[in-house]
Amino acid sequence: MGPDPFTHPWLGGLFADEEVAAPLSAQAQLAAMRRVEAAYSRALGTAGVVEAGLAERAAAAIEAATFDMAALRAGTARDGVVVPDLVKQLKAQAEATLHPAIHRGLTSQDVTDSALVLALKDLLPLFDARLAALEAALEALIAEHGDAPLMGRTRMQAALPVTVADRVESWRAPLADHRARLAEMTPRLMRLQFGGAVGTRHVLGGKGDAVAAALAAALALGNPPKAWHAMRDGLGELASWLSLVAGTLGKIGQDMALMAQQGIDEIRLSGGGGSSAMPHKQNPVRAELLVTLARYTATLLPGMHHALVHEQERSGTGWALEWLVLPQMLIATGRALAVAGETVAAIERIGSPAP
Amino acid sequence: MGPDPFTHPWLGGLFADEEVAAPLSAQAQLAAMRRVEAAYSRALGTAGVVEAGLAERAAAAIEAATFDMAALRAGTARDGVVVPDLVKQLKAQAEATLHPAIHRGLTSQDVTDSALVLALKDLLPLFDARLAALEAALEALIAEHGDAPLMGRTRMQAALPVTVADRVESWRAPLADHRARLAEMTPRLMRLQFGGAVGTRHVLGGKGDAVAAALAAALALGNPPKAWHAMRDGLGELASWLSLVAGTLGKIGQDMALMAQQGIDEIRLSGGGGSSAMPHKQNPVRAELLVTLARYTATLLPGMHHALVHEQERSGTGWALEWLVLPQMLIATGRALAVAGETVAAIERIGSPAP
Amino acid sequence: MGPDPFTHPWLGGLFADEEVAAPLSAQAQLAAMRRVEAAYSRALGTAGVVEAGLAERAAAAIEAATFDMAALRAGTARDGVVVPDLVKQLKAQAEATLHPAIHRGLTSQDVTDSALVLALKDLLPLFDARLAALEAALEALIAEHGDAPLMGRTRMQAALPVTVADRVESWRAPLADHRARLAEMTPRLMRLQFGGAVGTRHVLGGKGDAVAAALAAALALGNPPKAWHAMRDGLGELASWLSLVAGTLGKIGQDMALMAQQGIDEIRLSGGGGSSAMPHKQNPVRAELLVTLARYTATLLPGMHHALVHEQERSGTGWALEWLVLPQMLIATGRALAVAGETVAAIERIGSPAP
Amino acid sequence: MGPDPFTHPWLGGLFADEEVAAPLSAQAQLAAMRRVEAAYSRALGTAGVVEAGLAERAAAAIEAATFDMAALRAGTARDGVVVPDLVKQLKAQAEATLHPAIHRGLTSQDVTDSALVLALKDLLPLFDARLAALEAALEALIAEHGDAPLMGRTRMQAALPVTVADRVESWRAPLADHRARLAEMTPRLMRLQFGGAVGTRHVLGGKGDAVAAALAAALALGNPPKAWHAMRDGLGELASWLSLVAGTLGKIGQDMALMAQQGIDEIRLSGGGGSSAMPHKQNPVRAELLVTLARYTATLLPGMHHALVHEQERSGTGWALEWLVLPQMLIATGRALAVAGETVAAIERIGSPAP
Repeated sequence: MGPDPFTHPWLGGLFADEEVAAPLSAQAQLAAMRRVEAAYSRALGTAGVVEAGLAERAAAAIEAATFDMAALRAGTARDGVVVPDLVKQLKAQAEATLHPAIHRGLTSQDVTDSALVLALKDLLPLFDARLAALEAALEALIAEHGDAPLMGRTRMQAALPVTVADRVESWRAPLADHRARLAEMTPRLMRLQFGGAVGTRHVLGGKGDAVAAALAAALALGNPPKAWHAMRDGLGELASWLSLVAGTLGKIGQDMALMAQQGIDEIRLSGGGGSSAMPHKQNPVRAELLVTLARYTATLLPGMHHALVHEQERSGTGWALEWLVLPQMLIATGRALAVAGETVAAIERIGSPAP
Repeated sequence: MGPDPFTHPWLGGLFADEEVAAPLSAQAQLAAMRRVEAAYSRALGTAGVVEAGLAERAAAAIEAATFDMAALRAGTARDGVVVPDLVKQLKAQAEATLHPAIHRGLTSQDVTDSALVLALKDLLPLFDARLAALEAALEALIAEHGDAPLMGRTRMQAALPVTVADRVESWRAPLADHRARLAEMTPRLMRLQFGGAVGTRHVLGGKGDAVAAALAAALALGNPPKAWHAMRDGLGELASWLSLVAGTLGKIGQDMALMAQQGIDEIRLSGGGGSSAMPHKQNPVRAELLVTLARYTATLLPGMHHALVHEQERSGTGWALEWLVLPQMLIATGRALAVAGETVAAIERIGSPAP
Repeated sequence: MGPDPFTHPWLGGLFADEEVAAPLSAQAQLAAMRRVEAAYSRALGTAGVVEAGLAERAAAAIEAATFDMAALRAGTARDGVVVPDLVKQLKAQAEATLHPAIHRGLTSQDVTDSALVLALKDLLPLFDARLAALEAALEALIAEHGDAPLMGRTRMQAALPVTVADRVESWRAPLADHRARLAEMTPRLMRLQFGGAVGTRHVLGGKGDAVAAALAAALALGNPPKAWHAMRDGLGELASWLSLVAGTLGKIGQDMALMAQQGIDEIRLSGGGGSSAMPHKQNPVRAELLVTLARYTATLLPGMHHALVHEQERSGTGWALEWLVLPQMLIATGRALAVAGETVAAIERIGSPAP
Repeated sequence: MGPDPFTHPWLGGLFADEEVAAPLSAQAQLAAMRRVEAAYSRALGTAGVVEAGLAERAAAAIEAATFDMAALRAGTARDGVVVPDLVKQLKAQAEATLHPAIHRGLTSQDVTDSALVLALKDLLPLFDARLAALEAALEALIAEHGDAPLMGRTRMQAALPVTVADRVESWRAPLADHRARLAEMTPRLMRLQFGGAVGTRHVLGGKGDAVAAALAAALALGNPPKAWHAMRDGLGELASWLSLVAGTLGKIGQDMALMAQQGIDEIRLSGGGGSSAMPHKQNPVRAELLVTLARYTATLLPGMHHALVHEQERSGTGWALEWLVLPQMLIATGRALAVAGETVAAIERIGSPAP
């Protein structure tokens, strides 16, 4: 029970997003890797690398396998990636005659990256749905309170009167652009990872592309002409998008926290947090949390960009850096979207205080 | 004469990119701001806010104005932005009757951000052209040397033989995606900035949208429904793209530097750098420079994402942070594209050494 | 079971450091917060704020209390910090007569920050011991292999012959400086956090300083003249030091990974990682891991520096950002120290290959 | 005339710090490199590597030399560092008999790093003096206004009344710790860089250490037992310190900007910035600038930490990354110290507004 904020017994109350974390969990990723291995065995049959019945029996054996988690951990410590030991366990639970249809021509990065893509396949629509819901909530806020007067502020100073709609529109408008970016980016992410040991698919004797096509179809993923083992720009783009979204939400939170100040009094939020020393306070906890999550994703982002300097056919250093950063960014931005929705729903009053 | 690497007497030999720096220079940005102010005066005439002849004379006065640079500097020190003093100087050089047609309803951020967009209007096609040229150069490299054998390496270790084409394809393929991203992003960037003091265009008494339309047409920019004073996601997306591109190029440089090692000997580059102590050396200076520029843009990137937390109608802090970061990112990525082209052109031999 | 790499079923084989994580765990931090609250009750007695017997009974009640974890989580979600609910639970388990001796004059930040300092009190000597052990291991390496020839390499190119001692000395020498920095920094970190609601200790009617002295003595911490609620430079310094140490270790790992290349062959490490596709490989997994951890801590570091912009008497945003970053940095650097030791111990041969 | 903010015609009004930039300028660094080369020639004489009269004549020739800047630039573009061409120019301006006493046994990194250290030798006392002056100014502020009431604010909400002294003390207290850190760090920075081609001083046939001692004495720098070519932790520590200081000042600026809000009205600053659209405004431009500079240095900081992963005897990539980051951090923090002083001096009123 370490200090991870996303699964922490009490900090989880602030940071956890179970819906986003679910497909990224060890359990779900293990299931996804098994799914990739089984689909791959069947694809070997479809492409005629092995006999179809053999392929099906191999896939079935994979699907029935169970895992020794301690051995997976020891294997990862030794190999730097879980797949070698995972494959060893799969083979140990399958008859020797099935071994030629298991993981033959695959490599570790094919399996782990494709499993990640399967998680993203669940997550990207979820992000879009949350963005759409937040857009709708802000539209409703404008419909209800948009005409209320508000002091426009520039450089932290009162400038000229505006309306609530003017302020909230700057919260809402970027969301549509974020959704457009997501739609554009999605096909660049929904790509099968398959290249074999050095990314070339050569090992299957001319049948590599056919196997790729069958595997992509089975997983309902795009089939790029080449493995993207050493081309990490898709993941870098995703990380950038996550931080852009969290940044937009951070601006909403910062504005709300400023509006909630006594003396400004332009917003009232229900459910404000209490203090152990000052029970009278109503702290804008969720608004602050949006700022924290924005700064957190901005902090993590360059990790994914440094990982682009991915040497040769596979970088152990860059790849492992992604594992430390991308899941955290996904959860943080997912959480920010959820919190933004909650915060907008908590608005009891917005606009200049009655004179 | 400070330590700025991009204009430095000798470091400029490594880092300077005059073509990219040109539209970002103080001189060019001053011209662009004047262009925005003049077009705005004319737009006031087009929209009927002021009489058309008056508008034209105001625009002409703006176009004829000269600037006291020391006063611009003193004004920026005082006001945090150059525009108030710039407008003061414009008015001082125009008859008083023209003043109602100068900067009326505009604000500082309208002028500086629109001037930045005009620079980007020059730069984005330049980036695309450099990407296209690099793509073509890598295609030619594959055509010429693609069949040469090369040892595939994963985790810095020899893995299985591949070809030069296999390696170079991982350099080339992301460039097409970067160009697609650029095309998608461009309309989100080519947007007029115009909102007036608090971003609402209210001050022009119902004619704000007509002025916006006329101004956007004059500058050949898109006309968003609202000023993006406090919505900086477009610039954040641009910065992310710049770092993605530089990261891809950094991978090329890292690979080349590794290939150039004695004992590996998989590439020979002409024009290698000499050493003051070891005249025999042929250092892969340009390849290293690509790595440096990738790590530099990755380092700067979060600055643009923190700037998304842009409070209220205008944040002095976030806006100024962009000034410190975005021009440097543009030049660094532009320079990386140029250097990548030079480095590919310098390849004399590529592939496994003769046995 | 989320994707946290430090507690992950299999990634933990790479990243987990149980010895460092232990005092940072939720369980240990809960115990530390209880220890602070109990010591505080007794300090109220020592300073004469409450009667000594009452203070002791309150402390005993605190020490005997158990916690409803679900309520702590719900409280954190509501209040932004766990302490208000924790105090509520403590009071619910103590007679009403003891309540004046429980948390009176304390605030949430006093409790959580002091609990963090108690964790650091365990961790800083552990880091020093690991640094000392690594120094000794490198000295032994020099003693055993230091005279072996090695090709000196600059800019990734062979330069002039050196010895193993020359290279390893550049790994070892910074460790002594890191230990000196740690010794200098320690008194700036071993500081009690105590200020009450707004950091002033005013609430205890002139007895605040006496309470502080008693509490600091009980916890064996330094007693600064003022609470450091809004002065986070001590934690920023710690984070910087962690990243400096991990950076030094990353250089060791990078050197080793380069030395292990075929064609260079300057190091042989036992226990190299296997590949699922290429069983013959001996990947320098631990050396790569050192590079990953260095880039990870460098990535996280600015999070702690942005948190320095800590507004007014307490920033909810900056404080929560620390919770997302500092524990991860502590574990990552701790892990890097452990891995560095393992990697040096795994050296079977070092120096130029026999001709 | 690029977009560099520190030398920019008008942005310089915000960002320029000529006193800090001076020793970092190309001109000053060129002079410093010449000073190192001349002192080195003399040290060769002192140590008996060459005859003393020859050494003196070589030094005199170096001191009399002029430079072809275009050639320095072309040389840097080719070699990745200016020194090879600089030495070539020096030799071309000296008789051939003097050549054995010029740069013999030195390497590029010795010259550039020692020149940087000479700049730091001027700058570190300047930083200390500015910190001391700011401490004194804040003490005077406390003396004058410390008893004035102020609303303590936590999580952006009014909490309990404090005094101006309570708030300002959290601005002042960290400055003493920063000065202590600076004093501790200084000897780790004031170290001669001298190792020759691969950092070993071997080339001078046993006289390397004597040359080092003479050179260190001449430059009044510490003489570490080994060159720190590949040990960059000293520079990483400096960068961390710069960002810590700027972060502390950013907190001051953030507090002031919040205090200056209408409705809060807890501070009045003279010389507030005007707006091009709203002449009535008094923008807290300097306070905002402190926040910008804090976020800027926090952004740049990891660049210096990534540069710690400095491969082998010299990394072209890591070293060049430092050139892009460290001078900018020095100027930004220097500027922040100056601006903080100006801002405190501009306080006309501080404390709660009269009721």
